[in-house]
Amino acid sequence: MPDYDVLCIGNAIVDIIAQCDEAFLADNGIIKGAMNLIDADRAELLYRRMGPAVEASGGSAGNTAAGIASFGGRAAYFGKVSRDHLGEIFTHDIHAQGVAFDTRPLTGTPPTARSMIFVTPDGERSMNTYLGACVELGPEDVEADKAAGAAVTYFEGYLWDPPRAKEAIRLTAQHAHAAGREVSMTLSDSFCVDRYRAEFLDLMRSRTVDIIFANSHEIKSLYQTSSFDEALAQIRKDCRIAAVTRSEKGSVIVNGDDTFVIEATRINELVDTTGAGDLYAAGFLHGYTKGRDLKTCGDLGSLAAGLVIQQIGPRPRQNLKHEAEQAGLG
Amino acid sequence: MPDYDVLCIGNAIVDIIAQCDEAFLADNGIIKGAMNLIDADRAELLYRRMGPAVEASGGSAGNTAAGIASFGGRAAYFGKVSRDHLGEIFTHDIHAQGVAFDTRPLTGTPPTARSMIFVTPDGERSMNTYLGACVELGPEDVEADKAAGAAVTYFEGYLWDPPRAKEAIRLTAQHAHAAGREVSMTLSDSFCVDRYRAEFLDLMRSRTVDIIFANSHEIKSLYQTSSFDEALAQIRKDCRIAAVTRSEKGSVIVNGDDTFVIEATRINELVDTTGAGDLYAAGFLHGYTKGRDLKTCGDLGSLAAGLVIQQIGPRPRQNLKHEAEQAGLG
Repeated sequence: MPDYDVLCIGNAIVDIIAQCDEAFLADNGIIKGAMNLIDADRAELLYRRMGPAVEASGGSAGNTAAGIASFGGRAAYFGKVSRDHLGEIFTHDIHAQGVAFDTRPLTGTPPTARSMIFVTPDGERSMNTYLGACVELGPEDVEADKAAGAAVTYFEGYLWDPPRAKEAIRLTAQHAHAAGREVSMTLSDSFCVDRYRAEFLDLMRSRTVDIIFANSHEIKSLYQTSSFDEALAQIRKDCRIAAVTRSEKGSVIVNGDDTFVIEATRINELVDTTGAGDLYAAGFLHGYTKGRDLKTCGDLGSLAAGLVIQQIGPRPRQNLKHEAEQAGLG
Repeated sequence: MPDYDVLCIGNAIVDIIAQCDEAFLADNGIIKGAMNLIDADRAELLYRRMGPAVEASGGSAGNTAAGIASFGGRAAYFGKVSRDHLGEIFTHDIHAQGVAFDTRPLTGTPPTARSMIFVTPDGERSMNTYLGACVELGPEDVEADKAAGAAVTYFEGYLWDPPRAKEAIRLTAQHAHAAGREVSMTLSDSFCVDRYRAEFLDLMRSRTVDIIFANSHEIKSLYQTSSFDEALAQIRKDCRIAAVTRSEKGSVIVNGDDTFVIEATRINELVDTTGAGDLYAAGFLHGYTKGRDLKTCGDLGSLAAGLVIQQIGPRPRQNLKHEAEQAGLG
């Protein structure tokens, strides 16, 4: 039996979340719905212009790890914080959720990463990320026992932004595959796909990655097509399993010739889409590592995503194990 | 015309909010529903035991100031933070809400105050406050122009915990009354009332305070009676106006021989009662400083309190001016 169900690897980020109107995004040159990379000066400028905010641990794969643990799965995490107050918050929260997280924190600068997330009235989030300490994540941070000991490794496409994290990923994937484990990734963001299209396709085609998570924008960006069906046909050939989310339309899972269409969970009020994709992946991978069929994996993803978008912040406050049982998916 | 509608004075605190079960409170000796004062060592211990949390600016009077500003009122605030990351968060959030806040921050230790707030499944919050930099608030922090220039000054009974804040309050009240302004306070917490009963009664009977905010537990503690009606009869004699909240039963406002019974707002889901009393005071004082009748003041209080208890965190994310208009109270 593996030591962990899922090992997640990502940029370790604390979210600073505020609401804004559409004009604010335009006035400040923020690409709506995207992850905008910013430097320290722009971070200071945007913070001055930002409304009252709340802080919550985030980071795409960090949210997924927290979700796995909340479902009752055994999760581990690699990610780089600094020894500062935000680093302490990030570390506290992921440990408190029961995730094994032992990456050595950075001493001194740069500080722990933060993402200023602006939520518009339609619930869409636009992220502005200062990567800070994340730029120091490298292959020396790969804990071989966790890489070899997790049933599935899951990492973010976002990790292609910092300089050496991709080396950590390749090394982790080697350990994982050598131990007969599986490797999965999320394409993260359509602009991120645009920056690293060739490398992401290579990760899939070289079978470095077995399972792909993406949304419809990301797979269309990946294959440079405006047709969802065409993109889906292509991704079906490029990787063993692909789970593609489509916002309120639910998701589609493809596995060879098989296709599973999953409905979105019905929600009362869309508050903040932050974490939707991360929690979908958490639900899916929890089901997957428990040997559930792909349809149920998708339903668990929908359940978790549906909960997180009805609140402010990227990690649902509910106990997902309990929620899954209530929904008849336990 | 006054320069400000409401000047709020309080302990400047960042909230660290997590959920817990009833057993956690008992196991850790936390008095449910109360504000428990803790030292730095206990703060560290409780944080280690605390589940995944979110951070949000708080502090009772700080929440009220933010509420006043959200209603479109002109608010000012006195409170002491340190020059550290939590102090930066507190200052950012209150400024971003449009509150005039210029109290000189402390350089060095102690750090900015934080309150670990545990929310039980019934929505009740139990606070554990490390006062940090708040212990340095003193009369030297009173800005005479704001004290004399605000239609109403509002302060927390909690300010009797740090050593010299009460001197700041007495000085502010002198400036305010000399300028023909009014002074109000909240009794804050029934245990706080128990600590400072004689002084709080003296503030009322000496007419240092014109308007009292309290909940039913606090006025019963103040008059050491188990009878709400008896406590209400007493407070009617001791101050000009008293607004007493009664959780889901709404509130009662007494003013001489007049009594106004106010209903609570209907809510969908009770999530977290943090900020309920603070936001009631914000709604009431916003109405009061705009010359509205006491019944409407109470309805505005109910409206704001009803919104804040349906979310995690002590300051509602909605624009309260807009909400008041929607509710026909604009």
